[in-house]
Order: sequence, then C-alpha cells, then structure tokens
Amino acid sequence: MTDRVARAALSRLAEPGDVRLAALVAELGASRVFDLLREERDVTGVYTDVATRMCGLDPERELADAAKRGIRFVVPGDDEWPTGLQDLDRSEALQGRGGGPLGLWVRGPLSLRSACSRSVAVVGSRSATTYGADVASGIAAHVAGLAVGVVSGAAYGIDQAAHRGALAVRGPTVAVLACGVDRAYPTAHRALLDYIADTGAVVSELPPGSAPTKLRFLSRNRLIAALTLGTVVVEAAVRSGALNTARWASRLNRVVMGVPGPVTSAPSEGVHELIRGQVAALVTRGSDVMELVSPAGAHLTVPPRGDERPHDRLSARELQVLDAVPVLQGATAASIARTAGIPEDEVVATLRRLAEGSLIEHSVGLWRLASGG
Amino acid sequence: MTDRVARAALSRLAEPGDVRLAALVAELGASRVFDLLREERDVTGVYTDVATRMCGLDPERELADAAKRGIRFVVPGDDEWPTGLQDLDRSEALQGRGGGPLGLWVRGPLSLRSACSRSVAVVGSRSATTYGADVASGIAAHVAGLAVGVVSGAAYGIDQAAHRGALAVRGPTVAVLACGVDRAYPTAHRALLDYIADTGAVVSELPPGSAPTKLRFLSRNRLIAALTLGTVVVEAAVRSGALNTARWASRLNRVVMGVPGPVTSAPSEGVHELIRGQVAALVTRGSDVMELVSPAGAHLTVPPRGDERPHDRLSARELQVLDAVPVLQGATAASIARTAGIPEDEVVATLRRLAEGSLIEHSVGLWRLASGG
Repeated sequence: MTDRVARAALSRLAEPGDVRLAALVAELGASRVFDLLREERDVTGVYTDVATRMCGLDPERELADAAKRGIRFVVPGDDEWPTGLQDLDRSEALQGRGGGPLGLWVRGPLSLRSACSRSVAVVGSRSATTYGADVASGIAAHVAGLAVGVVSGAAYGIDQAAHRGALAVRGPTVAVLACGVDRAYPTAHRALLDYIADTGAVVSELPPGSAPTKLRFLSRNRLIAALTLGTVVVEAAVRSGALNTARWASRLNRVVMGVPGPVTSAPSEGVHELIRGQVAALVTRGSDVMELVSPAGAHLTVPPRGDERPHDRLSARELQVLDAVPVLQGATAASIARTAGIPEDEVVATLRRLAEGSLIEHSVGLWRLASGG
Repeated sequence: MTDRVARAALSRLAEPGDVRLAALVAELGASRVFDLLREERDVTGVYTDVATRMCGLDPERELADAAKRGIRFVVPGDDEWPTGLQDLDRSEALQGRGGGPLGLWVRGPLSLRSACSRSVAVVGSRSATTYGADVASGIAAHVAGLAVGVVSGAAYGIDQAAHRGALAVRGPTVAVLACGVDRAYPTAHRALLDYIADTGAVVSELPPGSAPTKLRFLSRNRLIAALTLGTVVVEAAVRSGALNTARWASRLNRVVMGVPGPVTSAPSEGVHELIRGQVAALVTRGSDVMELVSPAGAHLTVPPRGDERPHDRLSARELQVLDAVPVLQGATAASIARTAGIPEDEVVATLRRLAEGSLIEHSVGLWRLASGG
C-alpha cells in the first residue's frame, strides 16, 4: 500500500490532531502504521480507538471516488504540500491536539502551497457586528488585492466576511473546514463554499462526508494558524474559537494581530485581552497587516498624522508671538510683545514674517489674525 | 522679598515651562532671580523677554487680591506641594517646554498633595464621541469612587466627561488650566469649573487673569502628567493635545494607558497609535486602570472569561463522546463509539457519566442530547 493510500485510510480512522498517531507516522511511516492497525496490533492505544472504524474501510475506492468529484488528497512530499505545516510536527500539543495533518483533502483550482506561501488568516466571532464584518472584509480585500492569500474557516460572521472580501477583489482565498470538503457547514454557506472551490481552495484533513464536531474545530484551527504567516483576529468574544487559532499562531511563532473595537462591545473583548497581554499586535487596517507579515522593511506603513497645518513649521517663539495676536481688533506690536512675553524688536520682526506667510494682517499700525486663517 | 512673593512675581513675568527660568531658579533661588531681573540684569536672555511685563508688577498685592477671592498660591516646600512635580526638574524639555512650575495657583478645598498622591489623569479629544465620553466618565467614576483623584483639563469632550464622572460619585477631581483659575475656558464650562472649585481643586501655574494660549496648553499638559500616577487617553485624533500629555507621562515614567475604539473612528486613531507603539497599555475599564496604577499585587483584575459551561469540565475524550451523541433521534452506544472513534466499553461508561451530569438522555437503548441542554 502506498503512503498516500495509507494516509487516506488513517485520515478516515483517526480523529484529526491525534498526537499519538502523528508521532507513530513520523516514526514508522503511514504504511507501516496502517499495517499494524490492520493486524490489530494496539500501538499506544490507537487501535482500540479506531477498531470500530476498521470495518468496510476501502481507501483506494475513497480516493478514486473523491477524484471523480474533483477532490484531491495532498500528502507530505507532494509539490502542493504547504511548507508551513511542518512547524506543527515540532510544536507541543494544545488542548490534547497537535501534530501535522496526515494529508489534506482539497477542492478547488488553487495550489495550496502557492496560495499559502504568502497568506494571512482572518478569523473571528461568528456573532460578529457589522463593524467587525466590514473591517474583516476590508482587510481581506486589501491583502488579497496584493496577492496574499486569505485563509479562514467559512463560518458565519468574520470568516464569511474575510472570504467575501478576498473574493470581491478576485484574490486568493482558502477555506479550511472541520468537516469533509464536500459538506457545507454551516448549510447556509453552501454557495459561498462552492464559489471558493471554483476559484480558490476548500481544504480539510477529514475525508469527504465527515461531520464537524467541537474537537474537529479545535484541530482545524491549528491548520489555519500553521498555513499562514500570521493570524488577524477581528472580533472574538472571550470564549471565541478564534482565540484558539490565535493561541496556535502564537505557539507556531506566527504573527498574531488583533483589531480593536469599542470596549463596550462583547465581540471585541477577547481581542482586547490578546492585545493587552501582548499576544497580538494592534492593527487597524490592511496596510498594518501587510507591514507585519512582510519581510522587514517591505510594505512599511506611514502612521496617520493628520493634515499639516501652516502653524506646524513655526518655531516655539514664533508661535508664542502668533498666540498673542488678537483675532478681531488689531493690537500694536508693543501690546503684542507684552502679551507674548517677548521683546518688541523681536516681535516686530516675527510679525512681519508671519504676515508674509499670510497668517496675520497689518493695518494702520495694528496687527490681527488673517481673516482666512 | 520672600520666596513665595518672588515666585508669584516670576509666574506673572515668564511664560510657563520656560526652561531657562526654571534652571535659574533651581540654581539661585526665586528671590535672587527676581532681584536680578529688577536690576535689569539679562541672565540667559530672560530679562529681554520679560522686560515689557515688569511695569506695574506688584506681587504682594496680587497675592492678597487672590486670597480675597479664595485663590491660594502653593509653592515648593508647602505641605500641599504635590510630590510628583519634582520629576519635572529632572526630565528633559519637550517642544521647548519643561521644568517644574514656579508655583501653583489653586482654587478649591482639596489639598493638592493628597488629591494627587493617588490620582489618574483622564484626558482626550475635545471632539469626543458619545462612546468616548461614556467610557471616560465610567472610568473616572470607578477610580474616583475608590478615592483616586481624577485629574483633567476641563476642556470639552473627554476632559469634561472625566470630571463629571468623578463628581457623580462625589470623588476627588482636579482641573488643571492653561489660563488663570479665575477664568472659565471654555466659557461654557464656567459652572463645571465653579463646581470643581467647590468640591475639588482648580489649578494653574499662570496667575489669575491670564489668558490661555496654544503654548500654555502644551505647558499645562506636563503638569497633568506629572501630578498623576498615570494618564488614560480615551479618544485622541492623531493631532490631539492628549497625545502630548501621553508623551509627557511616558517621559516622566508614568503609566500611559489608552482606551481602544472602532478602527473606523478618527478620534480613536491617536490612541491606537499609542497602543501599537507600546507607548500605552490597552485598558477597557476602570478596574484595568486601578490595576496598572496600584502597587504590584493590589487591585488585580480578573480577565473576562465568560460564563462557565457544563462542557468546560469534560476531558477531551468525554467531549469526543458527547460530540458523537445525536441531538434528536437517539443512537446506540455502538454507533456512537464508531462516530467518536473510541472503543465501545469506554463509550458506555462515558455515556453513563454524561447522563448523570444531565448532559444526555437515555431511553430504550438509545442515547441523545438532553433536551434542556
């Protein structure tokens, strides 16, 4: 049995993120592990768990059926295998899940490796606000417009907004599911998932037909974090699964980013905790994200500064004189000097300069602010 | 001439934050510096600047007049002199301003030193949103309710909301002005300032009657930062004066805190920059502020966690079984074992435990989720 077929079989037998199985496969290879299980040899308890699923297993047929439906099974060593996943083999488990995936079932024209080599995860609350959804799709559109892949989980709320933002600019987007890539979860997102499968990629480590479960969502989150250069959390209540993705990203030394929101908004609470704990960097827009996931020196952003005003170029002493010039009724240079606390000869010279710059006006020995200012 | 009278005279002659004058007074004492100026001795250029203001100067009368109007002049060495101000003598100038104040003109019953010994500055945009104003007054009410003074600048917007929040809980509040304490700036805040003067303190380094100018606002900001243990910036556009206060607080090694807001809101942009640059710590509520300005270990906050759910106590394997139990139509233990990927005898034991915890129901050999869950 080939490595690919054995991995397909194991992906049907075991729950994703089973660290015992990942360790065994790394040590013995997938074919040898599958042979042991077929011989009912109980290595580290895996056989006991998967025994009920051995019956009727036919990985060759499953691969062939999947191929007929446009679903391919990508395994380590394939050209398309995303390089970032190898970091999972070296990282510790989180909540009992961990390890790299045995393989990835993929639906869609995008090469996983190229889509993910420069990509960002945009994740967040299912119960997002319109504020959060707008910001998520804006960030996704910005980065996808620069050919950076947008990876998310196709859930309601922020995930959906992220995929839509990328699709709106015809940018690359990848949906990573906690169920088979032939299933739509949530059901209402069937059209969205079909659309992503038409232009991007829909991905899962679970074989076709698999149902989503709570633990599969937790396992899925580690893939979203590992596939990307960084994870942007847009809205996440304190119990949001997006925080689990952020923890994975942090553990995998990816860039973790958070978009703040009103402190009165529960869906922003989790993000604020991430920023407060310096787990996440605060980002407010797509260009902030680009700066953080790009090589040092590339995509630098200019911090917002506001418009420059004529006053900005004045020295402190010039400003001190200008401050002393009245608005409506003019004043003499002597009076302005007294108000400013600056000697009269310096004041006269400064007033002339300010008048040249059209900041003040002069008439019959009296100075006042220019009416335009 | 006594030190107090000399300082009153100098506070009338020089602009606040004049670093040359602060250095001279530190070296020679206020009386000696005033004598030199009266002798028209031009030490480091100060005389040239103040010459136009020497005429008609009568500090004794000014102090007496002020006292009649309930205004006292507090100087270094007085019991009431706030200890935090000494840090200004050691810090570098910012935008040409710096140094400790010559003295503080004070209106109100509160002792400055006790009001400021445990105090927080709450500052921000004049063009605040209702969101920002609500958060500012909420934070001010929280800390003032714990007898921590709220120091601000009595401006429109965040400043006003901060004072009001403190006043609402009859807590200590201090308004630091860029004009004389007998003046109302803005004029619309006359009642607010009178109310603060009745119960708290209105403070300025400028003598009564002085008008506010741009530079005086910048000088004033250093006092707000120096008087307090930390500065909370609630909303601040990228050009807001509140950012100047934050820079002073940072320079004086005070705690700088920022309240985030929607990334689409211009008045939050400056705060987000402060947090992004790790100049400010992100705070979302009064208790966060208390934790940061209190001695280590005091006023610790519990991060928001959300309600605990029955699932939280389950092990990963118990959750794996629970995930496999159907919602409506019951399933056999064998079927659940296959779905969960866990051996049947372990599944049966787990199902019984879950039923004891009322998470699932059992009837005629079939298990399903409890209808209450």
